[in-house]
Order: sequence, then structure tokens, then C-alpha cells
Amino acid sequence: MRAGRVIGVGVGPGDPELLTFKAARAIERSPVIAYIGARGRASRARQIVAGHVRPGTRELAFAMPMTGEAGDTAPIYDVMAGAIVAELEQGRDVAVLCEGDPLFYGSFIYLLERLQGRFECVVVPGVSAMMASAAIARRPLASGAAVLTVLPATLSEARLEPLARAASRLVVIKVGRHVAKVRAVLRASGHLDGAVLVENVGERDERVRELRKVKDEVVSYFSLVMASRAEPLP
Amino acid sequence: MRAGRVIGVGVGPGDPELLTFKAARAIERSPVIAYIGARGRASRARQIVAGHVRPGTRELAFAMPMTGEAGDTAPIYDVMAGAIVAELEQGRDVAVLCEGDPLFYGSFIYLLERLQGRFECVVVPGVSAMMASAAIARRPLASGAAVLTVLPATLSEARLEPLARAASRLVVIKVGRHVAKVRAVLRASGHLDGAVLVENVGERDERVRELRKVKDEVVSYFSLVMASRAEPLP
Repeated sequence: MRAGRVIGVGVGPGDPELLTFKAARAIERSPVIAYIGARGRASRARQIVAGHVRPGTRELAFAMPMTGEAGDTAPIYDVMAGAIVAELEQGRDVAVLCEGDPLFYGSFIYLLERLQGRFECVVVPGVSAMMASAAIARRPLASGAAVLTVLPATLSEARLEPLARAASRLVVIKVGRHVAKVRAVLRASGHLDGAVLVENVGERDERVRELRKVKDEVVSYFSLVMASRAEPLP
Repeated sequence: MRAGRVIGVGVGPGDPELLTFKAARAIERSPVIAYIGARGRASRARQIVAGHVRPGTRELAFAMPMTGEAGDTAPIYDVMAGAIVAELEQGRDVAVLCEGDPLFYGSFIYLLERLQGRFECVVVPGVSAMMASAAIARRPLASGAAVLTVLPATLSEARLEPLARAASRLVVIKVGRHVAKVRAVLRASGHLDGAVLVENVGERDERVRELRKVKDEVVSYFSLVMASRAEPLP
């Protein structure tokens, strides 16, 4: 029997309209779909594609404890990969639902590491939260000869600051509980003027705020900051 | 009369299937569409959306001399903005077709600069060539706490090298005639091992090659290089 294929399907940042035709078709044609949700909550990726799951589709749902930080998540991916392999070995394709784009800071990467080389792997790219946030803010990510740096807010201030100083256009992802640190880094690197925090992209309560005016509250893990500076600091 | 809205519509990297439902609907509902093509060639963005342009849609087509480098392109955007404004003032919405994502190194940024504040501007984000290239290469852009830096190959070697040295994950865009320079920069910064060149994403002749094995040929302007290194150099 020919083994099935694993298909990492980017389902976009939240708005079901930001699904691509290719993603919708991959989901409609796959006998099995797999996804991860935060423990105790419905999977957001599953909600986004609700209109495209045919009756009779087999669903592999996994629960992830969301700590807000990179923790030891290896076991959940081992379990998930194992369940997917069992389907692939039966000749069934498995579409793995991925919020945003599968290969841009996506958890699909951890499945790809476990399955690549053993099974045929296909990726359907998606609209990332970074692009959707820029669209809401109506603000360019980068243009022309500008350098764009993407920084995870989970890094230490000591690591973030020199990287921010070297960049002219910045996106800081995974802001979560790191608002005060991010603001301090951007102030030191000359990026605070005009920096914006984009929250809950694709949700009804999505919003854009000037970072300067945000109190040191905890924002959602997927919030991001966009910042720019005319020229690199000397 | 109420003025029309300008809608920057990301149409994805080339495959018509990588259009989003939202983009398709924006094009179907707009009485006017606008786009730029290289002089003497059909607009690629227009080709991508061919299945979604209703009969009777007014089309504003502009020709751009593609030099492969950032030249003085301001006049074409002035002309384009002027033609769009004439439609907006008649109360008609104008959908501007943008390959990839409108705000990620997209030419829509130059129209936004000219129209923002004067007219209502809306952006429909799209799948960028960067995400599509990663999908073809089946290779992560970045994950976890990795820093991703996007470098335009048009920068000088002296500017590129320190930025490359500081990064763990690199995407070099606009490779075009800069293959030899990009390879030299990546060799110096420890990124050459495993670096790949992705060409013609979304076209029939799309391909992925090891950068090390690419001769010093001129590749297409929209080609990009993906590279990574385990740890920053000291």
C-alpha cells in the first residue's frame, strides 16, 4: 500500500475569508485532519476552516498546555506525529491545520522535523499574522532596500537590544507578558516613536495601539509590535 | 458624493489557488481594478486573478520599466495615484492588484504613501513569495526563539555582512544579478552550508537549488535565498 501524505495547511490569521482556495481544497480532499488547541479550548485553526470540513472527515485533535513561553513541548509533538503516522501508514493523507503560515514560527515545523524523509510532506503556505497585522495597521512592514528583522519577545533584553539597534524595520512577535521589556528595548534602539502594538488579529476585538501608551499589562501571546526607524543608529 | 475606497489586494505569489477568498471577493466587487506590469508584458498579478474579474470591470493598466534595481520609479506611482484618484472621486472603489502581500516589500506601499489620509485605504493581506518559497523548499523560515532577518540583495556587501553575521535565520530577497555577492556574504557569515536559492515561485519552472552549486548567473529579480546557522558567530 502506498503511504499517505502529510500536508501542512496554512489557514491564515483568523478570518475565514483569509483562507486560500488551495487550503480549502486540501482540507476538503483529505480524509483526515489534525490540529492542536490550547487545553480546554476549541482549536482556533479548526474554527477557521469549519466551513470546509466535509462530514465523515476523521479528526485528530490534540490539546496543548499553553504556557506562553517555549516550554518542553516535545512530548505532544511526538504523540501527534505518532497518530499521524498511523494514518499515513493506512494510505490516508492527513491535513495538519496551522494558524497563519506553517513554516513561519509555526508548530508544523516540529511535525515536519519528525516526518520529513519518512513520508511525503507538502506545505500549503498561508497568510501570516504578521502580514494581517500590517494590513490592519495600514502600515508597511518594509519596502525598497530596508532590512526587516523579526524578533521573538521571549529573548532577553541583552540579546534583543543589539539586534534592534542594527535594524531599520522591526517586528516583535510573541509579545505576551513582555510589553515592558519590548518598550525598553525599542526606546534604547530608537524605535519607540510611532511603534504600534497589534492585538487579536483576525478576531472581533482586534486593535492597534501606540506602544508608548500601553500600560505594562499582559497582552495575548500572539500580539506583535511593528516599529521602524529612518536610519540605523551609529 | 461619497469617495470610493482604495483596496490593496494581495493576490499571492503566482498560483491562482493561493488567492484568498477575501481577495477574490474584493476583486469581484470592485468596479475598477488597477495593476502594474513590466513594460511589454502582461501583468502577472492580472493573470493570477483572471478567473475573478467580472465582465464590465474597468481596468487601469500601467507599464513599469523593470530595471532590476530600485530606480527612480516615483513618476509611475504619481501617474498611477492620479488615475486612481480620478476614480475614487467619482465614488468608485479601486482594487489595486499586488503580487504577494501588499505591505511586504510591495509596490502598493508607494501608492499608500500618496493616498493615505486623503481617501479610505483598505489592505487585504496575501501569501508572500517568502512563505511560498519556504513551502516549496519544505524548509522552516524560523521557529521558536530564532531571529529572522530579511535582507535585500541590492545592499552593498559591506552593509550585508554584519547584518548576516548577527542573524541565525536569513532570507535574502531580490537576488537577481547579485548571486556572487550573496554567496560571498553568506560564506563570510557562516550561512552558506545548506543555503538554497528558490526561483520562479508559483510558475511552472519553479525550482530549489543549493546556492553553493549555482554559477554566477543572473537569476530572476524575485528569486530569494534561504539560509540558517545554528548559532550567531562570536
